[in-house]
Amino acid sequence: MKFDPASLTYNDQGLIPAIAQDTSGEVLMMAWMNAEAVAQTLETKRVTYWSRSRQAFWIKGETSGHTQKLLDMRVDCDRDCLLLVIEQEGAACHTMRRSCFYTSVIDGTERELMKPIA
Amino acid sequence: MKFDPASLTYNDQGLIPAIAQDTSGEVLMMAWMNAEAVAQTLETKRVTYWSRSRQAFWIKGETSGHTQKLLDMRVDCDRDCLLLVIEQEGAACHTMRRSCFYTSVIDGTERELMKPIA
Repeated sequence: MKFDPASLTYNDQGLIPAIAQDTSGEVLMMAWMNAEAVAQTLETKRVTYWSRSRQAFWIKGETSGHTQKLLDMRVDCDRDCLLLVIEQEGAACHTMRRSCFYTSVIDGTERELMKPIA
Repeated sequence: MKFDPASLTYNDQGLIPAIAQDTSGEVLMMAWMNAEAVAQTLETKRVTYWSRSRQAFWIKGETSGHTQKLLDMRVDCDRDCLLLVIEQEGAACHTMRRSCFYTSVIDGTERELMKPIA
């Protein structure tokens, strides 16, 4: 079946969450896409989100150089979430950490799991 | 720093997305939690979501037996997304597949990556 971005389920702002995972299995970040960002990402293989704060397309790494190359896009059973398998250049996080998920809270206190990369 | 679920950023429905990843690195599903579900999950170590369709707590696997044991909970840099590292019993997906992300769309067509488990 041919894939159509319009077949996905978007929220009331027209957005769908997209999880970025690198080829090692590490989950790097979660951000949002609209239908056009999904289409652009598939066409260019450069991951493009929709920035909710700027209300604009966000070609990941366009200014920082920390690009994400799309290797696979997966749709979940409810068609309301995407999993992007990517190659990450440098840090995915704006704090310069490899992953945005660098804080563990399992033991009731917050612990930093990784440091910014140079 | 002691972790407080109220310190997270929830959407206008009081919910935060939670990504479940098993110890092999496989991303299994994404669902939603409210502050009480976050607190319960940390306390019981049994992953508990908030069902948006039922508007009720959803203790994963309570009826199916396909439970998720919490090993780590991670907060992202913006404190508006959670990553749950879990041990999954059986299928995470209601379709009886191990993961909800069983459809690949990278090549313009939809391809099923995995079958339901017995």
